[in-house]
Amino acid sequence: MNAIDKLIEKIKETNNPTVIGLDPRYHMLPNCIREKYKGSLENVCEGILEYNKALIDEVCDIIPAVKPQIAFYEMLGLAGMELLYKTCEYAKEKGMIVIVDAKRGDIGSTAEGYSDAFIGKTKIEDQLYGNDFIDFVTVNAYFGTDCVKPFIEDCKKYNKGIFILVKTSNPSSGELQDLKLENGKTIYETMGNLVEQWGKDLVGENGYSSVAAVVGATYPEQLQILRKEMPHTFFLIPGYGAQRRQGRRYCFWI
Amino acid sequence: MNAIDKLIEKIKETNNPTVIGLDPRYHMLPNCIREKYKGSLENVCEGILEYNKALIDEVCDIIPAVKPQIAFYEMLGLAGMELLYKTCEYAKEKGMIVIVDAKRGDIGSTAEGYSDAFIGKTKIEDQLYGNDFIDFVTVNAYFGTDCVKPFIEDCKKYNKGIFILVKTSNPSSGELQDLKLENGKTIYETMGNLVEQWGKDLVGENGYSSVAAVVGATYPEQLQILRKEMPHTFFLIPGYGAQRRQGRRYCFWI
Repeated sequence: MNAIDKLIEKIKETNNPTVIGLDPRYHMLPNCIREKYKGSLENVCEGILEYNKALIDEVCDIIPAVKPQIAFYEMLGLAGMELLYKTCEYAKEKGMIVIVDAKRGDIGSTAEGYSDAFIGKTKIEDQLYGNDFIDFVTVNAYFGTDCVKPFIEDCKKYNKGIFILVKTSNPSSGELQDLKLENGKTIYETMGNLVEQWGKDLVGENGYSSVAAVVGATYPEQLQILRKEMPHTFFLIPGYGAQRRQGRRYCFWI
Repeated sequence: MNAIDKLIEKIKETNNPTVIGLDPRYHMLPNCIREKYKGSLENVCEGILEYNKALIDEVCDIIPAVKPQIAFYEMLGLAGMELLYKTCEYAKEKGMIVIVDAKRGDIGSTAEGYSDAFIGKTKIEDQLYGNDFIDFVTVNAYFGTDCVKPFIEDCKKYNKGIFILVKTSNPSSGELQDLKLENGKTIYETMGNLVEQWGKDLVGENGYSSVAAVVGATYPEQLQILRKEMPHTFFLIPGYGAQRRQGRRYCFWI
């Protein structure tokens, strides 16, 4: 099944259009976990894994998807990357849709590498290496079509999906994204139009494409404009809900 | 010493403004290495490490800097990330400047995580974790100032540097980057002006900032325009030289 249809089914099943971010910060962990796990990055990551698993156990029947933000794992070194994989694997086992927030992007051959790392497979001799626990990865498409193509090919091949940054939720997002082009359109609208176009071959049964978009809820007017211009694009909306211990809440807008 | 001054000194010392990319692709390794190392990702990564080390040994006295492209390491899973760290550490031991091509970028708090992962330090309780073998990381600043600030702070604190994408070298880079704004400037020029501004506190003894730029050599006209508009910005220029076994050659333009 098309990745976006899987996500939409899950949203219908739980009757909940939100996604829980897993952005681990050690100092925000409960004391009982920090007392038990400390002294090395490996221990710290074990503690976070225990916490992530507990959180997933609590929400997996009421929230459709989980979104670990990879920066908070990368900053914990190799142990952090192992923690990321184990967290994703656990969430998948519990039936959740897994979105890795990695905002990757590069020129063609390098984008292939990134796509292989998350939603595709790495081929070495006759062997394919990859994972079955990541459904979506987020992508930064400043590079244009070359950057997105390898991801789209893997979406088709392995029934995966991507969320491309269109309008981000941070205060300075407008510095570049809101600027107006000669044709009257803003940069974020132009990116939005490209995303709608890139996704056209991956529209599923629900009328939305597995090539989806990230659009910040902190800018509701822009959200309205983009919703009109991108009729087949599913939106992931950061900036909804407050920062909790180690998660940020997001929602989808269909 | 300011990171960009260190790089410029090294360029003067070797009298060579090029940087060697380390973009490992297993099928391009010499047969003797592929025969010796196969069967698992761990073995494959050991083989690539042997090759990377041999390459570094060969060039460390004539080429000032090395630039591993992280996508080709991430696609090899955890073993690949370990390979990346070991490669960077080895290049640093051999006196080379290490630029990790990661093109990271996100909103403020997440950008802090990315910066900690590469050029900063991760603080847990009273302990700082980090590395001393990465000098520069590449950054995608579609998010604007919020995204760049944490990196700049770490540049100041730890004498590190960043290269921000301005104009990329791929065929479709113009789809977004070349579009003209209402004020007559292109998107890449606007990004270039932002980079020049972001870098103003980090200008070193040679007149260049440790906040540097990536500008594709495949577009020489744009390169000329940007060179004029960004007088204190050091350029890393992809698209110079051919793809070799597992490296792409780049050059600097001061």
